[in-house]
Amino acid sequence: MVTIKEVAKEAKVAPSTVSRVIADSPRISEKTKQRVKEVMERLGYYPNLQARSLAAKSTRTIGVIMPASAEKAFQNPFFPEVLRGISRQAHATKYGIYLSTGTTQDEIHEEVVSMVMGRRVDGIILLYSRTTDRTMEYLMENGFPFTVVGRPYRNKNSITYIDNDNVGITKQMTEYLLNLGHTEIAFVGGNRDFVVTIDRLKGYREALAEAGISYREQYIFTNDMVSGNGKDAVKALMELPSRPTAIVTLDDLLAHEMIGSFEVCNIRVPEDISIVSFNNLSLSEHSNPPLTSIDIGTFNLGYQATQYLIEKIEDPETEPKGVIIPAELIERKSCAPLILTAL
Amino acid sequence: MVTIKEVAKEAKVAPSTVSRVIADSPRISEKTKQRVKEVMERLGYYPNLQARSLAAKSTRTIGVIMPASAEKAFQNPFFPEVLRGISRQAHATKYGIYLSTGTTQDEIHEEVVSMVMGRRVDGIILLYSRTTDRTMEYLMENGFPFTVVGRPYRNKNSITYIDNDNVGITKQMTEYLLNLGHTEIAFVGGNRDFVVTIDRLKGYREALAEAGISYREQYIFTNDMVSGNGKDAVKALMELPSRPTAIVTLDDLLAHEMIGSFEVCNIRVPEDISIVSFNNLSLSEHSNPPLTSIDIGTFNLGYQATQYLIEKIEDPETEPKGVIIPAELIERKSCAPLILTAL
Repeated sequence: MVTIKEVAKEAKVAPSTVSRVIADSPRISEKTKQRVKEVMERLGYYPNLQARSLAAKSTRTIGVIMPASAEKAFQNPFFPEVLRGISRQAHATKYGIYLSTGTTQDEIHEEVVSMVMGRRVDGIILLYSRTTDRTMEYLMENGFPFTVVGRPYRNKNSITYIDNDNVGITKQMTEYLLNLGHTEIAFVGGNRDFVVTIDRLKGYREALAEAGISYREQYIFTNDMVSGNGKDAVKALMELPSRPTAIVTLDDLLAHEMIGSFEVCNIRVPEDISIVSFNNLSLSEHSNPPLTSIDIGTFNLGYQATQYLIEKIEDPETEPKGVIIPAELIERKSCAPLILTAL
Repeated sequence: MVTIKEVAKEAKVAPSTVSRVIADSPRISEKTKQRVKEVMERLGYYPNLQARSLAAKSTRTIGVIMPASAEKAFQNPFFPEVLRGISRQAHATKYGIYLSTGTTQDEIHEEVVSMVMGRRVDGIILLYSRTTDRTMEYLMENGFPFTVVGRPYRNKNSITYIDNDNVGITKQMTEYLLNLGHTEIAFVGGNRDFVVTIDRLKGYREALAEAGISYREQYIFTNDMVSGNGKDAVKALMELPSRPTAIVTLDDLLAHEMIGSFEVCNIRVPEDISIVSFNNLSLSEHSNPPLTSIDIGTFNLGYQATQYLIEKIEDPETEPKGVIIPAELIERKSCAPLILTAL
């Protein structure tokens, strides 16, 4: 069978350009589209037919790819909740779930290639989006059905993805802190390789800029998304010459860890420092203090990623789409108005 | 290839008898063993060879079968934690994980048959054990590698299983309540189809019997294991003519729900009623009050079930074994000495 790579080579363009031509991307000139389409026809490359022939040998299985090892992921209740949404839809349509267990990007890529090549799954859900990700490129190039939880950094118009409005919601939570009188607001968590971190950082910056507050890189602590560094984050914050009075945190588990570490240092939340966070874990409702957090509709992210993946598996001609799941700030007790004497 | 069923038919015994002969069970007479072995030889049935020929076409995938839908299971942090253990070992040995999504026993059985027949997995972990389970029988009859988290109700000597000492640990937690002066102790949660419920009920009864306290069926509320009925349990308890002063609960999530429902009725834990529970979810450390709970070594249950499954996949002649994971009562603040005036 003719591959997208062969088409690209023959047409003297990058494989991603061929994908864009297939997706009829406005970023490709009509002239290039014409040339690529001629080559596709000449070589007998039919993207939809190819996808169909894969689907024909159905496994009724969905591959679910996590950003790190499943082991690490399962420490954070976010992933079981996404999987709960995936599972509801998979069960309704009688699909099974194949979980990746790789730890490094290389291992994960190998697993995906083996899923695609070994016809182990009919389609794949990527539970993350990175700024550079050869796995996503690979799936595109092979015309293999997949959906993404998160915003694709490239080829946004030719990939079906399910995301939150991360810029908007982070802007809103930063404004919430600004309205409480805070101006020294730290941003903690996330890895800048992930698009979600970039988008949230953008929302944070926009809120500061509109409030006329200058952005300070020293207040930004980005690293791994999934827990494990609350203590380090608190330590780093304590060493700042001018300590922030509020924190935007990217994950509830991290927030809870930080609250615990602050306690050890006799710094009280929310009296001495305010914290807002993401994911609205059920833990956050019962914790002390209850955590103000963004409900990102985790179940729905998984459910809809599965729904649109199965749609794509069963009808390869389905148009790609971007779906935004509403997010909501759940106000609890982890933030307080700034009292100038507090710190 | 000759199946275990054909051997059974020819030898005029049940297929499970053939399995027991293969496992050299002491429950089968020497005479029957002799006859079955002759038939096996005559028909050319080699149980280990059969298992090996399956393993030869390796998928490097483990099937993980949950007692209900994955969707329901993922509401309870117990399952992600078991999966975390499974995932650690699967990743270390480069196996992927295939999750069942079925809701009913029939659906789950169908999924297992399709995993075995479609050679989708090299082996299976059953995350539960029922008193009657045709899925377990099916796996035995087909000589397909599998391990069980829980105690098999039958064929204990020919199945590799990972379990806690559920009788002993429940006896211990009931004695803990007895030592606090409680004599009216309810038992809430679990389904008597599951062996784990039967074993825990046995431990509870043993503790009562040794303390000279009569067992009262009206204090026993068994139903589904995974949450969803804390409110109903509290309602049922409130309607008893003589209300218990302490409760043995089979799952932390259920215990937390019950504590919430008691609060609504102005009944305080532990002042008015004491609660002990199982699973030691991380939630239970941070809840109000912090919950006294049994740490059953959830991660290890998953990890070792995977370790011994892979051992079995890679060497079908591995002897079956029963592994007991230590469990520990973690004392927190949900139990208090009985104050006679409390209720």
